Amino acid sequence: MTYQEKLSAIRAKMMAVGIDAYIIPSSDPHMSEYVPDRYKCIQFASGFTGSAGTLVITQKFAGLWADFRYFEQANQQLEGSGYELVKLKVQHTPEYIGWLDEQLPARSIVAFDYQLMSMVLGEEIKQALSVKQFAIQDLDLLTEIWENRPALPNDLATLLPEEDCGQDFKSKLVDLRLEMQKAKTDIHVISSLDDLAWLFNIRGNDVSYNPVVLCYALITADEVALYINDGKLSPDDLNLLAERGGTIKHYQNISADIQGLANCTILLDGKRTCYKFLTQLSSTVRIIKETNPVVFLKSIKNEIEIKNTRAAMVSDGIALTRFFKWLEENIGKIEITELSASQKVKEFRELGKTFAGISFASIAGYGPHAALPHYCPDEKSNLELLPKGLFLLDSGGHYFYGTTDITRTVPLGETTEEEKMDYTLVLSAMIFGSAAKFPKGTRGYQIDGICRQQLWQQGINYGHGTGHGVGYYLNVHEGPQNIGPSNAAVAVDPGMITSIEPGIYRPGRHGVRIENLVLTVPAETTYFGEFLQFETVTLAYIDTSIVVAEWLLPEQINWLNAYNQMVYERLKPGLSEDEALWLAGKCKAI
Amino acid sequence: MTYQEKLSAIRAKMMAVGIDAYIIPSSDPHMSEYVPDRYKCIQFASGFTGSAGTLVITQKFAGLWADFRYFEQANQQLEGSGYELVKLKVQHTPEYIGWLDEQLPARSIVAFDYQLMSMVLGEEIKQALSVKQFAIQDLDLLTEIWENRPALPNDLATLLPEEDCGQDFKSKLVDLRLEMQKAKTDIHVISSLDDLAWLFNIRGNDVSYNPVVLCYALITADEVALYINDGKLSPDDLNLLAERGGTIKHYQNISADIQGLANCTILLDGKRTCYKFLTQLSSTVRIIKETNPVVFLKSIKNEIEIKNTRAAMVSDGIALTRFFKWLEENIGKIEITELSASQKVKEFRELGKTFAGISFASIAGYGPHAALPHYCPDEKSNLELLPKGLFLLDSGGHYFYGTTDITRTVPLGETTEEEKMDYTLVLSAMIFGSAAKFPKGTRGYQIDGICRQQLWQQGINYGHGTGHGVGYYLNVHEGPQNIGPSNAAVAVDPGMITSIEPGIYRPGRHGVRIENLVLTVPAETTYFGEFLQFETVTLAYIDTSIVVAEWLLPEQINWLNAYNQMVYERLKPGLSEDEALWLAGKCKAI
Repeated sequence: MTYQEKLSAIRAKMMAVGIDAYIIPSSDPHMSEYVPDRYKCIQFASGFTGSAGTLVITQKFAGLWADFRYFEQANQQLEGSGYELVKLKVQHTPEYIGWLDEQLPARSIVAFDYQLMSMVLGEEIKQALSVKQFAIQDLDLLTEIWENRPALPNDLATLLPEEDCGQDFKSKLVDLRLEMQKAKTDIHVISSLDDLAWLFNIRGNDVSYNPVVLCYALITADEVALYINDGKLSPDDLNLLAERGGTIKHYQNISADIQGLANCTILLDGKRTCYKFLTQLSSTVRIIKETNPVVFLKSIKNEIEIKNTRAAMVSDGIALTRFFKWLEENIGKIEITELSASQKVKEFRELGKTFAGISFASIAGYGPHAALPHYCPDEKSNLELLPKGLFLLDSGGHYFYGTTDITRTVPLGETTEEEKMDYTLVLSAMIFGSAAKFPKGTRGYQIDGICRQQLWQQGINYGHGTGHGVGYYLNVHEGPQNIGPSNAAVAVDPGMITSIEPGIYRPGRHGVRIENLVLTVPAETTYFGEFLQFETVTLAYIDTSIVVAEWLLPEQINWLNAYNQMVYERLKPGLSEDEALWLAGKCKAI
Repeated sequence: MTYQEKLSAIRAKMMAVGIDAYIIPSSDPHMSEYVPDRYKCIQFASGFTGSAGTLVITQKFAGLWADFRYFEQANQQLEGSGYELVKLKVQHTPEYIGWLDEQLPARSIVAFDYQLMSMVLGEEIKQALSVKQFAIQDLDLLTEIWENRPALPNDLATLLPEEDCGQDFKSKLVDLRLEMQKAKTDIHVISSLDDLAWLFNIRGNDVSYNPVVLCYALITADEVALYINDGKLSPDDLNLLAERGGTIKHYQNISADIQGLANCTILLDGKRTCYKFLTQLSSTVRIIKETNPVVFLKSIKNEIEIKNTRAAMVSDGIALTRFFKWLEENIGKIEITELSASQKVKEFRELGKTFAGISFASIAGYGPHAALPHYCPDEKSNLELLPKGLFLLDSGGHYFYGTTDITRTVPLGETTEEEKMDYTLVLSAMIFGSAAKFPKGTRGYQIDGICRQQLWQQGINYGHGTGHGVGYYLNVHEGPQNIGPSNAAVAVDPGMITSIEPGIYRPGRHGVRIENLVLTVPAETTYFGEFLQFETVTLAYIDTSIVVAEWLLPEQINWLNAYNQMVYERLKPGLSEDEALWLAGKCKAI
């Protein structure tokens, strides 16, 4: 079936059931960033493979609402599909709602699969469309026309050894129930897979890059039910869970159990729960809409998590050192491309005994490709790396136990003055953030301002956040904290691991990004209160050969030298003599 | 009647009508910062004169919930009143709600005057107390026991010459209606007095410091009604308003008109509208809760407003110059106190032909008093200024036309190393903010981070925001923008006037704050977008005699010298030769 034929089939079904517009979101019922194949609905319908976007179909128009990251890709992939690209003005906003409101006559019916829309978004759509008395309707139009629609993944999931989690399931449950008490709720239903993975100390392989398992949980003051498909857990793990007080139910039963609730209070996270659940609740259930408390509990890493993450950083740093040594020694001698470099760094990571997979698709951009912050090379775009200019590599791994995310930009030969200046400014921004001291309670947006200030003074900026939280052998993008220009609900608290990754991108020429992960730690307590600072946990040398030293403050140069020295000392024991010697050269003070 | 007797009377009435708890807020029906005497309910009931706080009364307990700014004052003023001070943990939060929830049995009845509570707060109370099935009730308990309760002020109000407003009423109405269309509302009711003053180009004298007039407005697509008491406007002004399309109604009629609305959509600003209006609306009225569009329109000063504000700054700078010259020449020679200094600076301002009153009660703190950021001297606290240490003066004026707000900290003689260091750090923070360049769309919290960073590195912080918006011959505190650590709804846009006022406070020793007002202006447009910067509009020299130059960056010293040079040049034409000579000395480059 071509995309045109699928579109016709969708429109025919819309006619048959009397629907004026149909919305296909990019999410799954767990509101995941990466979704199982079964929920790659946009790809199925239109051919677009980007991870964020929304299809909206009427009888007259079919469009993909996507943001600037995907403009080029969407234009290519949508050709001949019958869908047009509608460029989002503001990232992450449902601008199609306004379009529907304008285009459709009053009393139209708009449908979507309530499972695939978040509570917040479902309510926003309902509210916005109520002005013109639109009705909304729950409808899965795709399953019928999707031949061999993939089933849910049936990979095995495993319980992690509790000693490697630093906190056992029972203790996590105690913490969660305390938060439920504070929120005055009887019941809490969790849908978000990383929160479930953390709570149950469970990991799996159901989606790409994120080691999560498809499941739900319903928690009360004295019961905890895990909804998971048969056969996902080994009999031993099932026994373990039962011993710890967990009840196992079938994955599909969550819906029926939600419908069965009555005369109670339920806590639901509007961004991390599907709209369907909201519509299934009895009117006798009082709903508290708050962030799932696990989001916050999970973000504060415990001592074991921190210790293991430090060890993962050593493995990762060794892999990166070997890769960059290999790259320097082979560039201009053998053919190296963006794709082969990505493959090579993966191979070096795989040499690590605790390696468990890459944590996201590597961004390996050479020359002008590095100016696309979210670029991932494919067979068509794949550039050869030449012994000149800058190469940007943003990559990461999962380890037993810990998750990494690191970006380095390195010169492959001669570089321009502009490349050196941009490299130095980005490094300066990263050091401003990394070396900041700040009062307890400070939110990421203030640190974001501190990072960007010197770039701004030069009339330079970057169009992405400065940093995001990172999970513990879990999602590489984890909330609730972030460092960026937007409003933030929480502070950057002690125990959080966050990235700092400023960049400068000059389309058609080059791009620079430098990224470390930092752990928030106490700094000092003065009369003015408790101050925090960052400890950088990423361990990989930062190239100094193209630093314009006079653009850095003396204390920034001290920071850089101390960092590289620490990298050398921490990685040396795991390197061969030859490798250590090479790294010593890279880490020499400037 | 003593406060104890009043409390007994309130409790007796509570018993009589079956109320378990009574809340007395500090606001008026317009949600004002400064309220007419009629609404000084907390002062009437308890004797506490602070401008923010909440009384909560049950049969067993009577308390004032107030924040740290008022701890000392409340302890003094509440003595013997029957009220206890309850210290707020977090400023501006209704922590008494949690207390009521804990203290009272289920199904209790909590009452307050619905006119004196904002919509947002009223709804929050209702929602929070619904868990224990509390009922809330609209009740004014005070009027009956308040002998000779002051009537509403009947001072005359005036329409400003439209040429001095830069935009006439009709044109403002066009802008507002456009915003109402965007918000898809039929009707908008405005209660906030500064928004009304801006919209109608009207000013008055109904509360201290803010030149506003008690009124309401109801705006539809083709009508605009001003609700104002008879006799507040001259017959000429009434005619003018009528010519411009305005309908005049009696102030009290707003309630009846709100109750009469049916089958329409109304826009109400939850923070700037009383809860009573919400409860008076028919169920056929659809309510849109959004910020009153005037809040934003008003914040972007037009060319005339900017031009006139610049002129006001010259008058204000001349007054400040004369005051500080007088202070320097007389300190140690005649008796000068905090109060007499406040009086003196007011007198110097009054010499200006366009002076229209002070814009807030001066904060004049000598020595340890300067360490209290919100200190206002009174007869009891009044300190004599001695020829040593630091004197902090935070004051401002209204002019025809423009409003000023300025803080200077000056040495009166010998100062300690710590005083010099703190002074220099505060100056550095102010210059970091004032000299910042930032992309369009930047919110105040990022600039806040940039201002504070150097203090934070030293383990120093201040417990107030860095800056607030300032009105045009209007309230000295004006939204929606601010520079501070909290989430912010809007950016610091071109045309906004905002204060930058960092500080360091060392209780028992000294305090430093330096404050200028800045106008947001375009800086440059680069490949990376549109950048903005600040133009400092305040014109008063910054003392350089206690600056520790090596603590400032070379570009900060350049900024300081250029600023003082500009101050000298702009003020000189209005000064006597003697005064100009003195100022030249103060403005000499370092």
